[in-house]
Amino acid sequence: LAISALIFDVFGTCVDWRTSVAREVAAVLPDVDAFAFADAWRGQYQPAMERIRVGNRGYVALDDLHLENLALVLEIFEATSADAKALNCAWEKLDPWPDVSPGLKELKKLALIAPCSNGSIAMMARLARFGGMPWDCILGADIARDYKPNDEVYLASVRALRLLPKDVMMVAAHNDDLEAARNAGLQTAFVPRPTEFGTAQSTDLVPAGNWTIVARDFQDLARQIKLSKID
Amino acid sequence: LAISALIFDVFGTCVDWRTSVAREVAAVLPDVDAFAFADAWRGQYQPAMERIRVGNRGYVALDDLHLENLALVLEIFEATSADAKALNCAWEKLDPWPDVSPGLKELKKLALIAPCSNGSIAMMARLARFGGMPWDCILGADIARDYKPNDEVYLASVRALRLLPKDVMMVAAHNDDLEAARNAGLQTAFVPRPTEFGTAQSTDLVPAGNWTIVARDFQDLARQIKLSKID
Repeated sequence: LAISALIFDVFGTCVDWRTSVAREVAAVLPDVDAFAFADAWRGQYQPAMERIRVGNRGYVALDDLHLENLALVLEIFEATSADAKALNCAWEKLDPWPDVSPGLKELKKLALIAPCSNGSIAMMARLARFGGMPWDCILGADIARDYKPNDEVYLASVRALRLLPKDVMMVAAHNDDLEAARNAGLQTAFVPRPTEFGTAQSTDLVPAGNWTIVARDFQDLARQIKLSKID
Repeated sequence: LAISALIFDVFGTCVDWRTSVAREVAAVLPDVDAFAFADAWRGQYQPAMERIRVGNRGYVALDDLHLENLALVLEIFEATSADAKALNCAWEKLDPWPDVSPGLKELKKLALIAPCSNGSIAMMARLARFGGMPWDCILGADIARDYKPNDEVYLASVRALRLLPKDVMMVAAHNDDLEAARNAGLQTAFVPRPTEFGTAQSTDLVPAGNWTIVARDFQDLARQIKLSKID
């Protein structure tokens, strides 16, 4: 197994966005159900990106989509926020899962590491500081000016590293993200995050494809890649 | 002085490209004058970018321009390289000046830090690993698909951070780079590198403009920014 770079989904795969956003919401809007609010906010995520993916809207960074979506969700919850822009920065303060920071340090010894997220460079840079994620560079939606799972996002990220798709591995907790990456020619690693959507989560609990690697967490992923290089 | 991000010129300002490229050249082409070769290679740098700046050629990453320029310089020196692509990677193995790695660690505590170089994301990511430069993200030519000193490179870098030009400081050893950055609305810091072009260097020895900060080295820059925040 020869990999020159590992690129990562971030929301869900690296960070526990749901608990973290709910924490920020609870601090600012004490009267709403913070988890329901976080879920509703995230619920607007795919539809907002879909308009851009299909070409009905030019590229708009996720920071701006989040702010538009926040206005919708505040309306649904009949809530008002004195400073919506400040609340929007909740997406820059997301806790990584416990294995992520130590795991990335191990993985960085083996290959280039970079986020390939739908988040912007600005969001990813601030999130990396908050969560101790030692990326070599930031790839993803802003580089491609498009949103995953459109294949241009994976391919633009691979090109930015001046590598071939087969030399790059996409790491994600979501089977659809890996399917799109594999269709673009990348290698794939599935790392389940069974509580991303809460304890009743029913999706993405197991690998749904024949991925290159299935790992328990980022430290296990580092171990498996190391072993495959020795073999 | 309120700065949210510091963006850096890299060739000359962060790294001693001349000594480092000459070292790689000497290892591969023992019969040529390695410093003369490095100077000739770098001599093709501005003309190659100029065609792109003025719109006579679409954006081509600096890695590719370096490789084209290498072919020209090999011809001039009547030399041949068995593996020109490997020699081209000399530009990914450039020693930082001694103050750069410790200075960037200090500066990173004060603001976001990122290269705003004419080098590509791929080149900058590999160079950062080689030289221990702990960037938050990589900005510059690849983001803008244009070359400095065209103002789009500074402005696209500022936009990628979702900041205003006045909240970003350009750090460079070259007065023309700072002049272009200031014209784009950025703050400026001059750090002289009096031996970038060798001991007989006659350019950029002193600040040629009224820059926001003039610092001896990156550690001095960190001290001056810290002091200005306390005032």
